[in-house]
Amino acid sequence: MSKKHNFSAGPCILPQEVFEKSAAAILDFNGIGLSLLEISHRSKDFVPVMDEARAIVKRLMKLGDDYEVIYVGGGASLQFLMVPFNLMKKDNGKAAYLDTGTWAAGAIKEAKKLGTVDVVGSSKEENYSFIPKDYKVGSEYDYFHCTSNNTIYGTQMKTFPEVDTVMVCDMSSDIFSRVIDFSKFDIIYAGAQKNMGPAGVTMVVVKKSVLGKTGRDIPSYLDYSLHIAKDSMYNTPPVFPVYATLLTLQHLENNGGIEAAELRNEAKAKLLYDEIDNNPLFETFCRKEDRSLMNVSFKLTDESKKEAFDIAWKEAGINGLNGHRSLGGYRASMYNALPIESVQVLVDVMKSIN
Amino acid sequence: MSKKHNFSAGPCILPQEVFEKSAAAILDFNGIGLSLLEISHRSKDFVPVMDEARAIVKRLMKLGDDYEVIYVGGGASLQFLMVPFNLMKKDNGKAAYLDTGTWAAGAIKEAKKLGTVDVVGSSKEENYSFIPKDYKVGSEYDYFHCTSNNTIYGTQMKTFPEVDTVMVCDMSSDIFSRVIDFSKFDIIYAGAQKNMGPAGVTMVVVKKSVLGKTGRDIPSYLDYSLHIAKDSMYNTPPVFPVYATLLTLQHLENNGGIEAAELRNEAKAKLLYDEIDNNPLFETFCRKEDRSLMNVSFKLTDESKKEAFDIAWKEAGINGLNGHRSLGGYRASMYNALPIESVQVLVDVMKSIN
Repeated sequence: MSKKHNFSAGPCILPQEVFEKSAAAILDFNGIGLSLLEISHRSKDFVPVMDEARAIVKRLMKLGDDYEVIYVGGGASLQFLMVPFNLMKKDNGKAAYLDTGTWAAGAIKEAKKLGTVDVVGSSKEENYSFIPKDYKVGSEYDYFHCTSNNTIYGTQMKTFPEVDTVMVCDMSSDIFSRVIDFSKFDIIYAGAQKNMGPAGVTMVVVKKSVLGKTGRDIPSYLDYSLHIAKDSMYNTPPVFPVYATLLTLQHLENNGGIEAAELRNEAKAKLLYDEIDNNPLFETFCRKEDRSLMNVSFKLTDESKKEAFDIAWKEAGINGLNGHRSLGGYRASMYNALPIESVQVLVDVMKSIN
Repeated sequence: MSKKHNFSAGPCILPQEVFEKSAAAILDFNGIGLSLLEISHRSKDFVPVMDEARAIVKRLMKLGDDYEVIYVGGGASLQFLMVPFNLMKKDNGKAAYLDTGTWAAGAIKEAKKLGTVDVVGSSKEENYSFIPKDYKVGSEYDYFHCTSNNTIYGTQMKTFPEVDTVMVCDMSSDIFSRVIDFSKFDIIYAGAQKNMGPAGVTMVVVKKSVLGKTGRDIPSYLDYSLHIAKDSMYNTPPVFPVYATLLTLQHLENNGGIEAAELRNEAKAKLLYDEIDNNPLFETFCRKEDRSLMNVSFKLTDESKKEAFDIAWKEAGINGLNGHRSLGGYRASMYNALPIESVQVLVDVMKSIN
């Protein structure tokens, strides 16, 4: 069977090299006569994998020694609660959150269990069709939390606010897709299963100076300090997901880094948005200025064309184009590893519908 | 390079079939033209994997509809805190723990953050060289927690106590290795990376009737009820680790189930313990009646033979025999997938030292 055009929202397409190298490592890792799956995480063969998976993030993000990188299990959903456990003061804790979609709302829900949450901006009333921009965050807050990209609605923060407190960002769905001054942030987290690797591991970047100020007795697994102190080996890490993540980041570094990825992603997004804007049959859900380069959520303007369109993209070998169940329509997720040729196939299909 | 004799304590040897099938799935899953790593966890190709990974556990354990099986990230270390979050009453909560080693002590540490912990039995003062047996657990406790097998010290609970409360067991290191009446337990958890699969996922078996009684507002990811309500798809699960776990459990089911695994494990353990008992150069760390069938921790009685022994087992192609850093000596971990031929190679090496 020929390779498909994979627009899946995540887990999603990764570089072919990652599939090949990680499959080979399962049969024989580094030529040691053992599978990657059967070696100790403390063995001399795996420790360098973890070390390099941490180091490469700091190189790609151009971050210094004041930051640490850890890999933990549980997904971004576990970070929704790890963030307040590590940053929300035990007594009279208060945090500011920006509500830009389902995942932002999920993070807000967990933070409320540990303290006061002020939602400083929200587009919920307009079905998350834009990114709120007119808000201030002062030093009365323990931290500010935002979500850089909203997969379901196809919106993305193009700029980040200047805030007077600790800055936290969930970058799960657009990490390493564009050039950002990562040093603006104190905590960045991302579930790997978009631009970083397969499902099963979450990366957290932590500016060490923001920790240890809550007065809480944090449960051990939830404590960033402990993971940092143990070089991200507090307990057995998700060995295979970490290895495949390292392969994915090495592929990025070897292909021009974030700068080159950004150019490729801009070209892919322009190709698809130009078609949507020029083709009266299609429209996006969100405001133009907040459109995501990663996830293009769109719909038909004429529902009678649905059957023809669905048949056509499936026949073209396209996978994963259905919209999120909460919104309907279509969603073309164009993560780093998706080639522009796949976008061209989709655009050609869109042009063919009359 | 020829295949090694892998005595690693975990992650550890798995059936060769698991390596081959999981590597193939990374290149092309189910012949769909996509990698297992790039498909949605909600796709029609992965949902049956999760469903069957949950169902096969109940078949192997002979459990009924009053139990649910979930797979979560974070390792057994996350369960150390999920257990008290789900079972320890918010007001005046009190739990009973059995302290049989490093991991049991880790579980105790986390529970103390949420309530009162009574250690009803401990062998800590004698370096965890035996399993305490003389204790009672009454209905005044919210739950009782024990650890079925202690990898570092090489001890194992041969029987489980009758307790008058909710019964919780960490079976990470000997799950599916022997026939047990699993219906005695209300919660069983196990990090996959011993007898179940690769690192990166933890299985939890929950008797539904014990949940919802604490009065706590449990953080979402830590709430067993939520994972159960979402069919273990509350968020993106660790896709590859879950798939490789299913393959490992299918291999177990297709090779006689737990009953046959127990016979193989007893034969391997007898072979090695007989050599230790008959060879004056070796001795175990623990009491004979509490010896583990999974992890044989032993040492030389004459340290001058160390160099010769270390050279000999390495030359024989043996991997992972060094003892845990906290205890020293040697540790032969003989999980389900280790063939008796590997144990024979080790015994032959032991016999060759004079």
